[in-house]
Amino acid sequence: MLPVDLPGTVRDALLAPLVDHHCHGVRRDDLSRAEFELLINEGGSPAPPGTTHFDAPLGMAVRRWCAPLLDLEPHAPPAVYVSRREELGAAEVNRRLLTGAGVVAFLVDTAPANTSATDIDLLTATEMGRHGGAAADELVRIEQIERDVAEDAPLAVDYLDGVGEELTARAARAVGLKTVIASLYGLDFDPARPTRGAVIAAANRRLSDPKPPLTDEILLRHLLWSAIDVARERGLPVQLHTGFGGSGPDLHRTDPGRLGAFARMLQPVGVPLILLHCYPYHRQAAYLAGVHPHVYVDVGLALPHTAAASARVVDELLELAPFHKLLFSSGCHGVAETCYLGALYYRQALGAALGSRLAAGEWSAADAARIAHMIGSGNARRVYRL
Amino acid sequence: MLPVDLPGTVRDALLAPLVDHHCHGVRRDDLSRAEFELLINEGGSPAPPGTTHFDAPLGMAVRRWCAPLLDLEPHAPPAVYVSRREELGAAEVNRRLLTGAGVVAFLVDTAPANTSATDIDLLTATEMGRHGGAAADELVRIEQIERDVAEDAPLAVDYLDGVGEELTARAARAVGLKTVIASLYGLDFDPARPTRGAVIAAANRRLSDPKPPLTDEILLRHLLWSAIDVARERGLPVQLHTGFGGSGPDLHRTDPGRLGAFARMLQPVGVPLILLHCYPYHRQAAYLAGVHPHVYVDVGLALPHTAAASARVVDELLELAPFHKLLFSSGCHGVAETCYLGALYYRQALGAALGSRLAAGEWSAADAARIAHMIGSGNARRVYRL
Amino acid sequence: MLPVDLPGTVRDALLAPLVDHHCHGVRRDDLSRAEFELLINEGGSPAPPGTTHFDAPLGMAVRRWCAPLLDLEPHAPPAVYVSRREELGAAEVNRRLLTGAGVVAFLVDTAPANTSATDIDLLTATEMGRHGGAAADELVRIEQIERDVAEDAPLAVDYLDGVGEELTARAARAVGLKTVIASLYGLDFDPARPTRGAVIAAANRRLSDPKPPLTDEILLRHLLWSAIDVARERGLPVQLHTGFGGSGPDLHRTDPGRLGAFARMLQPVGVPLILLHCYPYHRQAAYLAGVHPHVYVDVGLALPHTAAASARVVDELLELAPFHKLLFSSGCHGVAETCYLGALYYRQALGAALGSRLAAGEWSAADAARIAHMIGSGNARRVYRL
Repeated sequence: MLPVDLPGTVRDALLAPLVDHHCHGVRRDDLSRAEFELLINEGGSPAPPGTTHFDAPLGMAVRRWCAPLLDLEPHAPPAVYVSRREELGAAEVNRRLLTGAGVVAFLVDTAPANTSATDIDLLTATEMGRHGGAAADELVRIEQIERDVAEDAPLAVDYLDGVGEELTARAARAVGLKTVIASLYGLDFDPARPTRGAVIAAANRRLSDPKPPLTDEILLRHLLWSAIDVARERGLPVQLHTGFGGSGPDLHRTDPGRLGAFARMLQPVGVPLILLHCYPYHRQAAYLAGVHPHVYVDVGLALPHTAAASARVVDELLELAPFHKLLFSSGCHGVAETCYLGALYYRQALGAALGSRLAAGEWSAADAARIAHMIGSGNARRVYRL
Repeated sequence: MLPVDLPGTVRDALLAPLVDHHCHGVRRDDLSRAEFELLINEGGSPAPPGTTHFDAPLGMAVRRWCAPLLDLEPHAPPAVYVSRREELGAAEVNRRLLTGAGVVAFLVDTAPANTSATDIDLLTATEMGRHGGAAADELVRIEQIERDVAEDAPLAVDYLDGVGEELTARAARAVGLKTVIASLYGLDFDPARPTRGAVIAAANRRLSDPKPPLTDEILLRHLLWSAIDVARERGLPVQLHTGFGGSGPDLHRTDPGRLGAFARMLQPVGVPLILLHCYPYHRQAAYLAGVHPHVYVDVGLALPHTAAASARVVDELLELAPFHKLLFSSGCHGVAETCYLGALYYRQALGAALGSRLAAGEWSAADAARIAHMIGSGNARRVYRL
Repeated sequence: MLPVDLPGTVRDALLAPLVDHHCHGVRRDDLSRAEFELLINEGGSPAPPGTTHFDAPLGMAVRRWCAPLLDLEPHAPPAVYVSRREELGAAEVNRRLLTGAGVVAFLVDTAPANTSATDIDLLTATEMGRHGGAAADELVRIEQIERDVAEDAPLAVDYLDGVGEELTARAARAVGLKTVIASLYGLDFDPARPTRGAVIAAANRRLSDPKPPLTDEILLRHLLWSAIDVARERGLPVQLHTGFGGSGPDLHRTDPGRLGAFARMLQPVGVPLILLHCYPYHRQAAYLAGVHPHVYVDVGLALPHTAAASARVVDELLELAPFHKLLFSSGCHGVAETCYLGALYYRQALGAALGSRLAAGEWSAADAARIAHMIGSGNARRVYRL
């Protein structure tokens, strides 16, 4: 898995426990094959007749790397894998895979990955920690809070108060805030804080009956800037989903390179901005992390999904990103396989990157080990004050 | 050419006959050096004084790989290559190169690659098949149909009827429809079907004298949605040129990532949407193929053009794309060299990708062979119902 | 550094003196650690507390490759490096690094890299040449000229005359003109020459008190087209900064792929257009260089900044770009380390690309050597008429 000739200190640094600074809870119930297939694909539809979502990079990786943790041979057929999964039961499978990831702390966005889903049964942050033999903390998905407030607020003014109060209350128990504005609107939003008048007008539309889904740019910006206020007050970072993952606007509108003006506006505020996933715009994200002292970056979900090809994605991220700005996350959601594979491919990809730099004499082993520790856990401990 | 240590089954799968699901006819006449140079470049202009289009990746590949098929040494100088080509005659050259590609079926867009060219002399689909020792079927370029209709229609209403009738008539003899809306307008078109009123108004402008070229967004959308109606009725897929290739709007407007809303709108219709070429946005295209059950993808023309560097392009496509959504095409046009090199670099690139996954233990040999068959011909047989 | 099994002729071609067709002067004064750190980062802000800009690809490369030229061990700690730098003195450090780059001619943009900085003390073009043991010529930054004219012009009409006269006067002593319109506005400008009326109106706003910074699209286009007039008259090329580097508009607006219409408009004019840096849009730039006979491309600044990962960047550029359109530049600015590393990583990356093509039998050694000479100096001599 790791290059064979890595110095021991570098190997140890790569194998050290990770802080998974962004993941979701996984399903606690046993899954049919159809359910499992939907959860290893980002699209939400079954594969076309005669095909299977297992025939994708992530599906191959599940069969290769997760099968042995379920006592199967590598490359076990999909039917065998799903049936063994059911046989062991979700709790045991989750325990094996989450523990196998070698994570020391999970930071968990407990809202479902897809904001429109409400009824699925996910492990809580505490349970993620317990199953994974790790500490666990919560991330507050701000659009989830907004939805709860919009449900109950009779008037726009209550809505505004409610958003502020709920953000403050929830942030008190969290280590970070997270926004999915990229999925709901796009990253080509006006970076300025909207005026109160505009927000009131938009809130009135939002509170109409039946309620429209939250896609209004004004309200999303209001929510984001409210979150920034709370984050500044409490010294919390704000996570921003960018790039691929889930449905939403056209992909090019989720390019984090569109966040230049917003990042500049945020710089004097001092709130760390953490760009999640980013693929296929991870080079753009790395650039932002390089020029803004408060911008951080990971490629989260891209690792389990690009699987056997993930080494190049990580190496592209390393082209420009400062090493004190890189974080590990598994982007885990739906099934614990994504957590296990996220950690596995992260270690494998970073190991390959370090190995090639050592072989070329570009880096010293001491620096390589130090940087592996920084990316794997040190930077997260600093930014999230763990 | 293929990695030396590939298992026999994988090697056999890579060398098996391919379905080239998108190519153009090649020139039937003998070509001067100046003509040949224009056809191995996408720009349509001669190279600057003192330089040659042979000094580009495709030109180097012609000298390296096509020269031996013309009984020359590898790396033959350009002048020698062109003169030997003339000596053998176009028919013999086409025969050697098309046969050499190892293709079992050509799906041929018989409209010229550049819609504005009318007078060049290309092999028909039947001739492509005969020269290449393969079956051959036709793809209907919808903008070509529109041009024929616009020539003859006296009134807007005739134009509308004509487009519908011609599409239906031509589709009856074809295995797929194809649009070059990306080159004529861009992919940032309004995805909705235009209203009849808007189309009539636009058709009136289109039928004015002298006729403007077809760049009107309304008419292009009308044409596309008319094609989708016909495709649905007949169970045909629709090909969409995206990314580089030919002149047209600024490159970023041809990014298939801009097709998210259109793809979502098309999903319930059930017409397969096949993204062609895609470079340098093939990662975006692979993502769409992953999340939409009806979206397929290739990197066609990018293979002969990136030549010695094509392995990375294919490997990037494999980062996210499901294996049942990938197709082979040579993107062949102008000269048969592009067909031969498209097939050669496809096999070489996929061979390298499979070889590295096997060496890393990521995939089993059985899966690798199965997937090579799917991409090389199986998926095309399924989508085009060959 | 270079692949060990390169043929001697290829090795010689790679090690031959380079024309650095785009660099800036470097600081002539001794630098504190804080100052040095700011100059090896593109953002203009110190690294966050507890971190250092040395922990980035460029910083690692400085410690690895520049340290030995300062008589230190490879991987010297940052503090040791900066202190040795001070001990030797800026003049000696500049001499060692610039000479070490193996450059035969520097083309120097003598305006500061950041247009808003006025007071920093940079080597002149002549001094760059003297320190580097090379010839040196000047590039005219057109926005710098505009600023000087805007300072003094009492009326809009004087401004217009002044811009034209100053461009003509400065171009007489220069080998090329350069625009940073990408940083000041973006590349999504209207490609047409603005009308005189629009320019007069914009100039009146520009001459108001206090003067706004130069971000007006009309004035920037006027300046660019005035520069093109002068360039055509004198047979000079125009350089265009694109992609990453410095602050400015959101990154996606600096994508050279947006220059398609402008490039087409410029084609009949016959002025060479040289795309600088381009990262992470170098594939788009390579495409433009392939389809337009007057478009050239480099990845300048991306080489020292992506450092240990620069080989892939160069190899991606080589996917589509014609070999007679590629140029070497170090993108050197601020500190001479960027020049030394730009040249080192260029040679290393091109060496790797040639080595892999030779090993795969894709290119002949004769072609590889010839192409290395073209990219390293031949193309620049032709375009700049050196």
